[in-house]
Amino acid sequence: MEEQSSSPMRALFIGFGNVGQKVAEVLFVEREKHPRLVNLNLSIIGIVTKSRGSLVNNAGVNVVRALKDIQDIGRFSSLGFELVNISGLDAIRQLDYDVLIELSTLSIQQRGEPALSHVREALKRGKHVVTANKAPAAFAYHELQSLAREKGVRFLHESTVLDGTPVFSLAREGLKGCTISSVSGVLNSTTNFVLSRMEQGESLESAVKTAQREGFAEADPRHDLEGWDAAAKITVLANALLGASMTPFDVDRQGITHVKVEDAQRAVKAGKHLKLICKAWSEGGTVRARVSLQEVEHGHPLAPIHESGSILMIESDLLAPFVITETDPTLCDTAYGVINDLLSVACK
Amino acid sequence: MEEQSSSPMRALFIGFGNVGQKVAEVLFVEREKHPRLVNLNLSIIGIVTKSRGSLVNNAGVNVVRALKDIQDIGRFSSLGFELVNISGLDAIRQLDYDVLIELSTLSIQQRGEPALSHVREALKRGKHVVTANKAPAAFAYHELQSLAREKGVRFLHESTVLDGTPVFSLAREGLKGCTISSVSGVLNSTTNFVLSRMEQGESLESAVKTAQREGFAEADPRHDLEGWDAAAKITVLANALLGASMTPFDVDRQGITHVKVEDAQRAVKAGKHLKLICKAWSEGGTVRARVSLQEVEHGHPLAPIHESGSILMIESDLLAPFVITETDPTLCDTAYGVINDLLSVACK
Repeated sequence: MEEQSSSPMRALFIGFGNVGQKVAEVLFVEREKHPRLVNLNLSIIGIVTKSRGSLVNNAGVNVVRALKDIQDIGRFSSLGFELVNISGLDAIRQLDYDVLIELSTLSIQQRGEPALSHVREALKRGKHVVTANKAPAAFAYHELQSLAREKGVRFLHESTVLDGTPVFSLAREGLKGCTISSVSGVLNSTTNFVLSRMEQGESLESAVKTAQREGFAEADPRHDLEGWDAAAKITVLANALLGASMTPFDVDRQGITHVKVEDAQRAVKAGKHLKLICKAWSEGGTVRARVSLQEVEHGHPLAPIHESGSILMIESDLLAPFVITETDPTLCDTAYGVINDLLSVACK
Repeated sequence: MEEQSSSPMRALFIGFGNVGQKVAEVLFVEREKHPRLVNLNLSIIGIVTKSRGSLVNNAGVNVVRALKDIQDIGRFSSLGFELVNISGLDAIRQLDYDVLIELSTLSIQQRGEPALSHVREALKRGKHVVTANKAPAAFAYHELQSLAREKGVRFLHESTVLDGTPVFSLAREGLKGCTISSVSGVLNSTTNFVLSRMEQGESLESAVKTAQREGFAEADPRHDLEGWDAAAKITVLANALLGASMTPFDVDRQGITHVKVEDAQRAVKAGKHLKLICKAWSEGGTVRARVSLQEVEHGHPLAPIHESGSILMIESDLLAPFVITETDPTLCDTAYGVINDLLSVACK
């Protein structure tokens, strides 16, 4: 049913960290290995970053060279004729593109800026937006979706929860008639990994270092350990799937910084596991959300998740509760969420 | 994004057993309880059954009365002016409808007939088809999808695997760029329930009777116990998600009729569970499928499924393996799969 568009879709990247590089790598370097990417004909006309320089080329940036530059010297090469000095917002307002790929860093304290403004400006110009940044959907979901509808474009954010494992696309196509009453899950892999390691006797500090070495905890892990990442994720779910209009500041939030090795081991001895559980639910016409440390028994639907995996349960009026489990994600999973969104834009 | 169509979608039911009745009940009796069904404006212009009589009314069958008749006397009332004598095939060829809802009984031995002919004839007339019957997708998936594409209509079958829990809709929208390499799962709830009970010391015969009493095992349980239902399901998955062209007869199939209580209990003592595992996978350019009894360890991705639940793992080139678990389905779940498909037809 899907047909390849004859002319390429023109994309503008804002941010080009691990996820952006992986998206580019899959689409421009490893493409031949993935037969079903044939439906995605993409031309990257700009990559704007804060610390790696910015590239603009109306005929399509040399992506392979850009990736190699970052690998070799950590930034775009000053020899490239594509190298320009432009802000994200200016690029979004001035360049000629079809879809903005917003991959800047989430900032809770700045209430989602600058990502939120980036997305708003692109939608105002009638450009599609695909983002892995939780901020826009966590701070202004309905404003942005209304704007997208009004302009006849898409605002998609599959990678914001469970990486690229289908959640929002699943709801779009598979829960068309369901009224979702509750979503709950273990959504932050760093804290889940750290708690799993603490069960085995490792200290919180040491487990965090291991998570950093393995590449899924940030250099500054407080965002994860204090429950902000989990709060942002449950906010996106509440806004997108339960019709809430909340921000991460409205979430009743707990982190794991206070947990001791003995707490984790005591839970295991009692046949349980400590989990940082995110939950959003409808209650008397309003939606509430919470991130809290809980002792979960073996038979609990959210129990079968270990180390860096994530798990999500969806409850609704017409389906028995069902669970989606992401077993062992890598960077490619997050990149795939962006790619699937791009395919949703390309194959209407 | 979805808009309600102004004129109702005209539906023809073939078969009106438990699933058909539940679909009708949700849409025509319990409708007010389910706000998101507002997008589905359906008029049932015919219900053709083998043993309950058949109703035809071009202006819309009186569904509430039809349901009451079945509840009261087990068949449509002879007082109804809508009562007619017509075969399924004649109704499909002659009546004026937009979508065929095919809910006849699966027959493996008759290679999917009469459902297969029903679906083919409807598609040939350019009518959409929604079915909970595994036969059409298990015996002629690609023929029927090609026919649907050629005629510009949909052939949908969400309920065939994991009831209404999103599988095919998930793949359609959420796995657009993935090449699926393997699907595996516990897909038949009767055998899973029976094996769970045998672990607790109940005999196979007694466990089957319990499953029948609780309403999810058929009067003739051989279809489940010999692995045919599981084989049909893995065939639908192989055809729809891995591009295979196989039938249930091509599946390397095992049932559970030979299992003894001691076998189930021995597995538990070794920290394992006996599961009837379905698997389809790509191997050197071809797709193979198998239904086999396996001892599954606690940490196995398919282990966390008990009693009447089902579980499915999907592996692909771009996403880490992920698992969908249906915890405790009722008839409403199967009905919902049909309803979601109808919404996919209605909200293009």
